[in-house]
Amino acid sequence: MPDSDSETGLLLNADGFATILSERLPFAELMGLVVEEFHRDYVIMRARYSERFLRPGGTLAGPIMMGLADATIYALLLSRIGPVELAVTTHLSINFLRKPAPADVLARASMLKLGKRLAVAEVVLYSESLGVEKPVAHATATYSIPPPDRRQA
Amino acid sequence: MPDSDSETGLLLNADGFATILSERLPFAELMGLVVEEFHRDYVIMRARYSERFLRPGGTLAGPIMMGLADATIYALLLSRIGPVELAVTTHLSINFLRKPAPADVLARASMLKLGKRLAVAEVVLYSESLGVEKPVAHATATYSIPPPDRRQA
Amino acid sequence: MPDSDSETGLLLNADGFATILSERLPFAELMGLVVEEFHRDYVIMRARYSERFLRPGGTLAGPIMMGLADATIYALLLSRIGPVELAVTTHLSINFLRKPAPADVLARASMLKLGKRLAVAEVVLYSESLGVEKPVAHATATYSIPPPDRRQA
Amino acid sequence: MPDSDSETGLLLNADGFATILSERLPFAELMGLVVEEFHRDYVIMRARYSERFLRPGGTLAGPIMMGLADATIYALLLSRIGPVELAVTTHLSINFLRKPAPADVLARASMLKLGKRLAVAEVVLYSESLGVEKPVAHATATYSIPPPDRRQA
Repeated sequence: MPDSDSETGLLLNADGFATILSERLPFAELMGLVVEEFHRDYVIMRARYSERFLRPGGTLAGPIMMGLADATIYALLLSRIGPVELAVTTHLSINFLRKPAPADVLARASMLKLGKRLAVAEVVLYSESLGVEKPVAHATATYSIPPPDRRQA
Repeated sequence: MPDSDSETGLLLNADGFATILSERLPFAELMGLVVEEFHRDYVIMRARYSERFLRPGGTLAGPIMMGLADATIYALLLSRIGPVELAVTTHLSINFLRKPAPADVLARASMLKLGKRLAVAEVVLYSESLGVEKPVAHATATYSIPPPDRRQA
Repeated sequence: MPDSDSETGLLLNADGFATILSERLPFAELMGLVVEEFHRDYVIMRARYSERFLRPGGTLAGPIMMGLADATIYALLLSRIGPVELAVTTHLSINFLRKPAPADVLARASMLKLGKRLAVAEVVLYSESLGVEKPVAHATATYSIPPPDRRQA
Repeated sequence: MPDSDSETGLLLNADGFATILSERLPFAELMGLVVEEFHRDYVIMRARYSERFLRPGGTLAGPIMMGLADATIYALLLSRIGPVELAVTTHLSINFLRKPAPADVLARASMLKLGKRLAVAEVVLYSESLGVEKPVAHATATYSIPPPDRRQA
């Protein structure tokens, strides 16, 4: 595992995660996912709007929001434990709260518990027009962290 | 709402749903989703494998499975209530159980409760190589059914 | 529906909810549930410790925490919509994060979305010794709000 | 770990689990929980009706059903791995589907995935009057299985 970045306390920074996203998760590009902010306490990612994401009613399809939620929690986890690519989601629960406008969606993830084997985080999804106080969705997810000898693909 | 198909008891058949999928949900095509079976008691859909769906470890990315689960429940619901395109997911909870091989994934959805305002269904996701007895994921989802005067986009 | 309390903006206050709890939910007393704080933005309830709540390992049994989570969200909802006793949980999802000490547990609920038919809230459960920053559990729940003519038992 | 019962293939039988329930989980008795059936593929438990379990509307309070669901999955897990009392729930998600009559509730749990560290199971809750085909609730839960050297309290 890499040393922690001395300024940020992160074990993987925004550029490091963006590299994993672009080189190892081709589906993330299809969903227009980009990193916005990397902090010790939270990570924000964005799903860039595309007409391909529309569903009947002119709102965004649920899978875009589920993919964004999952990726943002993955980013948060890797910022804390380093580039453990083989960490995998074991559970995700999402509540869809308001109809998302046909526009970019942002996701802000924060950690509820970071253990040795399991990490649980929550993520709030919101449109820029409504803001984080009126979220379009809220999710929690659990990631399983592989033991040290089985962390790289 | 259309009359029920007299043979199948369905209010929307496989072809009708495939049309909604191709004309109204462009993201479903990106995910390679196709209808396999439409029955009164269950619906099966398939996500056709693409290298774009891979994640580190050589397995399928979670969002593919979440999108497939959500779409299969949408199909099952519409088969029961007709082409109510504006039905929307309010909640989805998914457990990832086994690593999905880099291959097609199937999803089999069945209804737990079909009410006037809410429908709850479960869906089992599986690889053809392992079969439905060793599912790769299991999800439940709730759909909100709009009142009769607000059902079409 | 009663008029809102002019000072607090609440449609049901702590005493009103405590009455519902004691007269209408006998199980809440078995679980030692009491109201701690009623505010517009959040409600805090407490499950008073009893040896009956222990499970192997000397921690608290999960059902106590699930019951506390559910009741706290019920309290929050009724503080906003008034004494609509027939509001019912349609879904609850809980993550158990840390082992709860054999002591009182507190729950702090806040609203994610209050709609006409559905309300979604989240709740953080914590021991006084660890504080809300190290929660023992986190839950989200959806309540179904009955139409105005079917709100009283 | 005990040897498997040669006839049933179970590592803990109904009597063994009933002993854990009565000696180690006092809250289970408050909820009226009793074992009905222990099989290799599923376990059925019952929550015996009491007026204390009523909620407004004359139906059963949610926490009774959550407690029954959790205990039934615990029973199923221990029937497979033996009396590992320190196995703990890490996540539970429940959908309430129909109003439960003021009567006994039954729960039938089956395993979705039994791994070395995590087990995921589903459980269907039903009233005897309606039967398992019209469930009053459906839940899934994940249990964390402690490593062999940390299994006894």
